[in-house]
Amino acid sequence: MNMRFFVIVLSISMLSFVASGTVDAKDLIVEKQKFTTNNFKTLNGNTIKQVNVGWEAYGQLNQDKSNAILITHYFTGNSHAAGKYNESDPMPGYWDSIIGPGKAIDTNKYYVISSDTLVNASAFDKNVITTGPASINPDTGKPYGLSFPVVTIRDFVNVQKALIDSLGIKKLHAVVGASMGSMQSLEWAVAYPEMVARMVSVIGSAQSDAWLVAGLEKWAAPIKQDPNWNKGDYYNENAPKRGLQLSLASITQDAMHPAIFNASNPKHQTINDKALNDITANFPVVDWLYGAANARVNTMDANHVLYLVRASQLFIAGHNNDLVGSLAKVTAKTLFLPATNDLLLYPAMSKKAHDLLGEQSQYHEINGMWGHLDGIFSIKSKAEILTSFLESQ
Amino acid sequence: MNMRFFVIVLSISMLSFVASGTVDAKDLIVEKQKFTTNNFKTLNGNTIKQVNVGWEAYGQLNQDKSNAILITHYFTGNSHAAGKYNESDPMPGYWDSIIGPGKAIDTNKYYVISSDTLVNASAFDKNVITTGPASINPDTGKPYGLSFPVVTIRDFVNVQKALIDSLGIKKLHAVVGASMGSMQSLEWAVAYPEMVARMVSVIGSAQSDAWLVAGLEKWAAPIKQDPNWNKGDYYNENAPKRGLQLSLASITQDAMHPAIFNASNPKHQTINDKALNDITANFPVVDWLYGAANARVNTMDANHVLYLVRASQLFIAGHNNDLVGSLAKVTAKTLFLPATNDLLLYPAMSKKAHDLLGEQSQYHEINGMWGHLDGIFSIKSKAEILTSFLESQ
Repeated sequence: MNMRFFVIVLSISMLSFVASGTVDAKDLIVEKQKFTTNNFKTLNGNTIKQVNVGWEAYGQLNQDKSNAILITHYFTGNSHAAGKYNESDPMPGYWDSIIGPGKAIDTNKYYVISSDTLVNASAFDKNVITTGPASINPDTGKPYGLSFPVVTIRDFVNVQKALIDSLGIKKLHAVVGASMGSMQSLEWAVAYPEMVARMVSVIGSAQSDAWLVAGLEKWAAPIKQDPNWNKGDYYNENAPKRGLQLSLASITQDAMHPAIFNASNPKHQTINDKALNDITANFPVVDWLYGAANARVNTMDANHVLYLVRASQLFIAGHNNDLVGSLAKVTAKTLFLPATNDLLLYPAMSKKAHDLLGEQSQYHEINGMWGHLDGIFSIKSKAEILTSFLESQ
Repeated sequence: MNMRFFVIVLSISMLSFVASGTVDAKDLIVEKQKFTTNNFKTLNGNTIKQVNVGWEAYGQLNQDKSNAILITHYFTGNSHAAGKYNESDPMPGYWDSIIGPGKAIDTNKYYVISSDTLVNASAFDKNVITTGPASINPDTGKPYGLSFPVVTIRDFVNVQKALIDSLGIKKLHAVVGASMGSMQSLEWAVAYPEMVARMVSVIGSAQSDAWLVAGLEKWAAPIKQDPNWNKGDYYNENAPKRGLQLSLASITQDAMHPAIFNASNPKHQTINDKALNDITANFPVVDWLYGAANARVNTMDANHVLYLVRASQLFIAGHNNDLVGSLAKVTAKTLFLPATNDLLLYPAMSKKAHDLLGEQSQYHEINGMWGHLDGIFSIKSKAEILTSFLESQ
């Protein structure tokens, strides 16, 4: 969920209790950097000639390069986790409430790195650098479309590892991610245990179960159903914007608990004259949801959303259908922060991983009315737990 | 959810604990009857020249016609609530576990009437009689399509009232319904308080909140997105079967808790070779869901589903955006039976109505792993409560 949408939600729902987003003269000013790696091998055995991803960093890398924390982003997010690009930006990065000088993830102590994933949804956002179906295939000079290989959360991690290697960092103080970012943080701890001292999974899961796989398919279906999708070959034609809009509307609703969804629509009336008299008329709440989605459609790519859905569907820590065996490889201390009211990656998913990890693991639920989005909007309530976890030896 | 789908679910998920559906020589044998009412006035001021609906009855109406109980059906259901059409039917009606001789709703005592709604989803099921967009408009000799007026839960109730009036019944011993049927049972108690002695709302709601209205829209969207839908004008062309299939798949998943959904797919593996290598390939769990939906597509009408969505979206008891005032009209004793794990019409919805009704109301949660479908599959666990509620004076 990008900042533009936050602004829309905020402006129409008067959610004055949202802690993040205060304008502060001390805001970090950050810039996007570009990382490139060539001949990238994917989990399924393909090669991508050139991978470019954007990244940001907050704080200073210390001399022995031991203070780096990697932040991995959620489904519709990107590497803009904290700070602003300039003073006049309306909103800072999504976790600005916990990342910055003196904050839970203290940039006076840590060098915080955040990177865009492969197939990032916001392919056409000027602040996102990513490689995916919308990228030009150097072999053809045309966008890959569906010839781009299926990529996985492991591949996202491997691109990040190449970035971390390029910086000369041998071991991460921590990897921290929310939602799809939690899949990456846990995968880091499984795939490269020697490189991960601490792992934080916020509103996360160790495995996409049948229910989640089917639920994620509902984000893909409207895109595939759009005649403009044309099996992914639309870059010279009309993009499947209607399908993408419906997909984003579903994503938004799925991430919200009914309590906050209803609070965001205080003027909703069940009997609505237009809806009562015209079967084709929308309720205002539906127009609100579609409108918010529509504001994001032009910076996003439908194929990228399909690929993100697939990466998320294929996620099981270790990527070998052996969760117990894979988690046994983890040497990091782990911290799970699910949201009590999360209906998407519900707390039992985190609990399962936590229980399998045993003594090295901590588990605390985030209480809030947002549901899944409590992992973003209510994260500050776990600031002290985060700080002491990061300080623990 | 019709019986064919139950059979599919049962056959692939080995859910031997499902209590309903046992074959018994004492099964009620029932038949579908047809009720017709002319010049039916809808809530929004339209007139439908002729309305036909199917109905069934179990037990005997007593001499003073004081023992009638009306059963109102759920979204994808119909009037087949109990018994079988013949001994060889694989499954009885959906609430056969609680309706029959000596059962919670005892047909030795009560005359149990169950009717099809207007715009019933299963317009082409031979055991359903309904009137809606797929019906022939007597003025044109062609299917109504979207010229059929928007109808509401109040209209469903008013058709049932015409049926009850035609039988000479002045007061119903009870009205009992699950899910969308609960909307009808509560609407009966609000609209015709003098005719309703007892009201039972199973997995129900008194009002569709903003969250539910938007959620229901996700059942309509795939139909509207299907190019074959053609603004509802498809009766001489290809029907929007793909859209209807996606809609039914969503309905099915939304009615199930993750626990039962996962238990129904015990062979699900997150890493799946086809899905890993081909972005267009489906996971087996998605094919399962689509296949189950597909088995129902030919007996259902896409426009009817749109109209059912709209009727459900427009539901607030009393249909005047004044829930408190409307519930104050209820003189019936009321019983609310939400399911603890229901993620669709979650228990807080029932609780709200129960609290507003005060002393005349009872509230008990159904415990089970099905989620919303516990209102069908686990209803027998509340048999004693139902029996004593129906016997209460």
